[in-house]
Amino acid sequence: MGKIICTGLGPGDPDLMSVRSDRAIRSAAHVAYFRKKGRQGQARRIVQGMLAAGVTEYAMEYPVTTELPFDGPEYRDALARFYDDWADRLAQVAQSADVVVLCEGDPFFYGSFMHLYTRLQGRAVVEVIPGITGMTGCWTATGTPITWGDDVLTVLMGTLPEADLVHHMQAADALVVMKTGRNLPKVRAALDAAGRLDQAWLVERGTMPDQRIARLVDVDVSDVPYFAIVLVHGHGRRPELEAVE
Amino acid sequence: MGKIICTGLGPGDPDLMSVRSDRAIRSAAHVAYFRKKGRQGQARRIVQGMLAAGVTEYAMEYPVTTELPFDGPEYRDALARFYDDWADRLAQVAQSADVVVLCEGDPFFYGSFMHLYTRLQGRAVVEVIPGITGMTGCWTATGTPITWGDDVLTVLMGTLPEADLVHHMQAADALVVMKTGRNLPKVRAALDAAGRLDQAWLVERGTMPDQRIARLVDVDVSDVPYFAIVLVHGHGRRPELEAVE
Repeated sequence: MGKIICTGLGPGDPDLMSVRSDRAIRSAAHVAYFRKKGRQGQARRIVQGMLAAGVTEYAMEYPVTTELPFDGPEYRDALARFYDDWADRLAQVAQSADVVVLCEGDPFFYGSFMHLYTRLQGRAVVEVIPGITGMTGCWTATGTPITWGDDVLTVLMGTLPEADLVHHMQAADALVVMKTGRNLPKVRAALDAAGRLDQAWLVERGTMPDQRIARLVDVDVSDVPYFAIVLVHGHGRRPELEAVE
Repeated sequence: MGKIICTGLGPGDPDLMSVRSDRAIRSAAHVAYFRKKGRQGQARRIVQGMLAAGVTEYAMEYPVTTELPFDGPEYRDALARFYDDWADRLAQVAQSADVVVLCEGDPFFYGSFMHLYTRLQGRAVVEVIPGITGMTGCWTATGTPITWGDDVLTVLMGTLPEADLVHHMQAADALVVMKTGRNLPKVRAALDAAGRLDQAWLVERGTMPDQRIARLVDVDVSDVPYFAIVLVHGHGRRPELEAVE
């Protein structure tokens, strides 16, 4: 009887995954990962050169989305069938061997793995190895602490309505906005309305060799990848509280 | 000419630090870490058994706080002198050798290291290795994803005024509250006022052998350590957006 081991890969630099994930991946005989059809996929790219000879790979390719509206019932059904199918297949593999699932960042933080995780409950032993989140890689890349003292940090998805974004951006000290891409013009407008645009940074591929860091006001918001992250650093209200207790 | 390497240690299990931090710590000749006077300190405890023979250790002991009100000017001044002094000493060591600073969790996420980091700018080369945050270790320990879909996550310090806590707890989907300890009765009252108490978990020592996970309503809030973390999981609004783009 095997188990399913979901390994957090961290922000992208393979040197930044945990010792435990590193060990699990190098010793794996079965490795599964999500990717878009026709792409190598970022998760698979991160472990390039780490996999053992003779490993069996399971590329879990998202259903084609170009012809279906992504928020419609048809796309939702296709995605549900996709997760159902792969939960079945991984549970089958785990009946006789361990299978390692590669997850960018941290598996429990906005990860696709949770759709398999919920479906696998009671059907297989699932172990989750945490990872450094992509946002942590991005704020490290900026060379500035994201939060200190009693700063409030809020993490937002660029898919939210603009009014919701503005409301949260006004209330928090430090901000992380993920899922930017085509949402970036809206995110930029929301930051402007909230009076935070001047403090905002855009980070692409944080911790990777080709990382790009720019002030958001200087970026062409019409051409930014989906995984780029917007950051507003906190200002360290009451930093002297750090050492207490 | 050496440099100062701040290594994120992750949530506590030494197996969960990054491959890069692990390598830096095992090869270090000079190691510095914060601790309270008379304690071994959690950072030093995490690396037990990893340090090379003959390593020079620098225990950076916080000034005694029992006789000074922590929010008063005297304590603030003592703490500023403490950071000034250690920034000088580390910069001095770095003139001839690398020195590794041990930081629990991630150095740029509510870490004490940033008080040295700001003081060392222009005086020494400082490299920061990110780590898995303590909160990530805690939500992994609960066995439930903290966020999915377009959930809003807000991170709060238990030191904030109760009204601020309530406001943020009502606005976010998922919550993390740090610096609990003697603030926990206030945090519990705020969660209750915000209608979130029934969904709240308290996690102590997440990922460590003696971790404790309990529903907050079942906890005696008068006796909880400062580093225990309160979590409210998100509910995965619009999870079908996961695979888009």
